[in-house]
Amino acid sequence: MVESVNFIVKDKSFEKFMMMTILGTTGDAMDVKMNFFFTFWGLYLLKKKFKPKVAGMPFPMKGMAAKMFRKKLKQFGWEEPWDMIREAVKNGNMKLFPCQMTMDLMGIKKEDLVDFTEEPVGAASFLEMSEGGRIVSL
Amino acid sequence: MVESVNFIVKDKSFEKFMMMTILGTTGDAMDVKMNFFFTFWGLYLLKKKFKPKVAGMPFPMKGMAAKMFRKKLKQFGWEEPWDMIREAVKNGNMKLFPCQMTMDLMGIKKEDLVDFTEEPVGAASFLEMSEGGRIVSL
Amino acid sequence: MVESVNFIVKDKSFEKFMMMTILGTTGDAMDVKMNFFFTFWGLYLLKKKFKPKVAGMPFPMKGMAAKMFRKKLKQFGWEEPWDMIREAVKNGNMKLFPCQMTMDLMGIKKEDLVDFTEEPVGAASFLEMSEGGRIVSL
Repeated sequence: MVESVNFIVKDKSFEKFMMMTILGTTGDAMDVKMNFFFTFWGLYLLKKKFKPKVAGMPFPMKGMAAKMFRKKLKQFGWEEPWDMIREAVKNGNMKLFPCQMTMDLMGIKKEDLVDFTEEPVGAASFLEMSEGGRIVSL
Repeated sequence: MVESVNFIVKDKSFEKFMMMTILGTTGDAMDVKMNFFFTFWGLYLLKKKFKPKVAGMPFPMKGMAAKMFRKKLKQFGWEEPWDMIREAVKNGNMKLFPCQMTMDLMGIKKEDLVDFTEEPVGAASFLEMSEGGRIVSL
Repeated sequence: MVESVNFIVKDKSFEKFMMMTILGTTGDAMDVKMNFFFTFWGLYLLKKKFKPKVAGMPFPMKGMAAKMFRKKLKQFGWEEPWDMIREAVKNGNMKLFPCQMTMDLMGIKKEDLVDFTEEPVGAASFLEMSEGGRIVSL
């Protein structure tokens, strides 16, 4: 079986947020280590109360589409995504790493982020961490 | 040699369609298993008669640029991409997997898609399938 | 340790340029082979005097944001990115491969590109080259 997958998350769209949720929690269910490295706009997904919008929709529908998708997901049994992520993090299978350098670049502080991320790391730590596993840039 | 490459296709742009065509058919020629997992907007690329547009061009040229690129590709000996893909699929090297969950989410049905895709799968099947190979998110 | 990472660069944004700079030069410092394969709009990043803009900002701020980020990066000790890339290329750890086919498609010539790229290659060469390493599509 795949041992670990190391994802780079660089966008703040609803689509990337859902890919991260689905892959992370599916990996947790399969007992695969899923490390997510958030850089540039991807850091926004970790911000408290940030509401991602649907990138693949024309401007006025971006926010509405996200709401509609969330509602449908609930119907399919996918409850509040952050509750699922928090659970996967608690299980030790899903890990959320903010990128230190782009945090500094974009003026984002550790306290702006949800409280179950790991300590911020740099690109070198990410490359070391991904030894023996995959690297996937979402 | 690389044994298998497992691609995630999440956009519906002409660029991603061409990357999928070029990588998939090149892999076929090299006898490498190329699995493509279509999720979110990427599913549109599998829709019958869908015409992808060039994402990297400003609005009024998106459709025109796709036509122009197709014409040039023909001059380089790249005939109708779908014929090449169908051939690679027939050879058993290229496989097109629609993502079940995002199909449900976006109201896309199996009969909307070209008739040589595999059966729709979920994220868990994709992760299992990619064991021993690469995962590349286009 | 990771032996080699093979990146596909398909966009011309400032964000992708910085990811390529940071990953490439970090890999160099760790003595990891970092191969970058530039296709479609990614080829623009290799063009002499091309100034990438910030994709994740609304239209009128795209250019300004790139300048602001460059200035901040300088404060953090990240000097002119191209000097760092040139150094990593000279060390033999970072390699820049233009994609021959999309160069032809987009009418880009070898002499349009910075003078320390490798010879243009095709998708088959890229897949062969990436044997034994990762493939990451930025």
